[in-house]
Amino acid sequence: MASPEIEALTQALARLPGLGPRSARRAVLHLLKKRELALAPLRRALEAVEQTLSTCQLCGNVDTVDPCGICTDPRRDARALCVVEDVSDLWALDKSRLFPGRFHVLGGRLSALEGVRPEDLAIDALVGRVAAGGIDEVVLAMNATLEGQTTAHYIAERLERFPVRLTQLAHGLPVGGELDYLDEGTLAQALRARRPVG
Amino acid sequence: MASPEIEALTQALARLPGLGPRSARRAVLHLLKKRELALAPLRRALEAVEQTLSTCQLCGNVDTVDPCGICTDPRRDARALCVVEDVSDLWALDKSRLFPGRFHVLGGRLSALEGVRPEDLAIDALVGRVAAGGIDEVVLAMNATLEGQTTAHYIAERLERFPVRLTQLAHGLPVGGELDYLDEGTLAQALRARRPVG
Ligand SMILES: [Zn+2]
Ligand SMILES: [Zn+2]
Repeated sequence: MASPEIEALTQALARLPGLGPRSARRAVLHLLKKRELALAPLRRALEAVEQTLSTCQLCGNVDTVDPCGICTDPRRDARALCVVEDVSDLWALDKSRLFPGRFHVLGGRLSALEGVRPEDLAIDALVGRVAAGGIDEVVLAMNATLEGQTTAHYIAERLERFPVRLTQLAHGLPVGGELDYLDEGTLAQALRARRPVG
Repeated sequence: MASPEIEALTQALARLPGLGPRSARRAVLHLLKKRELALAPLRRALEAVEQTLSTCQLCGNVDTVDPCGICTDPRRDARALCVVEDVSDLWALDKSRLFPGRFHVLGGRLSALEGVRPEDLAIDALVGRVAAGGIDEVVLAMNATLEGQTTAHYIAERLERFPVRLTQLAHGLPVGGELDYLDEGTLAQALRARRPVG
């Protein structure tokens, strides 16, 4: 029964993460019923973001301003830099507000399998930022995967000649994690990184 | 960290049914990362619907054409009319493809509490459609609520002088419903409408 326009909208919404075909249908119906209160505002919000969207030349974050809001935030500690694979990792870490410094987005991780080489990632730019000085600590916040860790090791080598403290996220049991539900790799990491008690 | 534009988009998405603040955030990140493949198509789809959206003058359905696709579909039985409270009910019934006729959307249900009177609903229009002739059966598909049933009774009275068969959706046990999980009202309806076995 849906017209081609409504069908196209349903499909565009259904492709969003977290929305399936069923909830996309409900969302479309909601938008159709609330043309002024829901459809028009959403269209305008998308338009505004689309027109201003840019990639931060400093850190690789996506924002509507360049440099991005994080890079220009005076309350952030410019001496601490957190290196992440992807913008989604940056957002996940930033949401928690646990890291008070700035970020550097690599745009992926080294992968022999997928043919991703150092020059395909923003690694030279990272080295350049560190070489420019003013940075005390670089946190390597790669994913706890083989490729993520390979990437971290490669970056650590590239940065070892600079007077910065290199750290990485601790690996181990997730909070609330029950031993017998964890995969072997996590258990091995947790055992290897074991600490004295008390 | 999000700019005003990104914040506005997140909030517009979070207001859609089925998306909370958390999944809206994920959806926005997806849109930011896929400007050409996700953001622009969604914006265009919304625009197209917004520009063509209309309410069917015959039945009250929302569609991008007027009369709507249902009212002009030659494969549908114009002699059967299903009366519903809301467009969402029309969509729910139409999705199942169980009803082969056309629809009539009232735009609500009578409610003493909320001050909704017969003249606030598309009841005169319904009577007009039936009076014009060519309709054999009117299915009253109101919700199984007190207000829905009050509305159905009122409409039945208004239509009783016309030579049409008036029916309503059966009430009773939902398929798969277990007796001890059902509310008393459903049980009472199911008992009242009991049928001989075999
Ligand atoms: Zn930045
Ligand atoms: Zn119609």
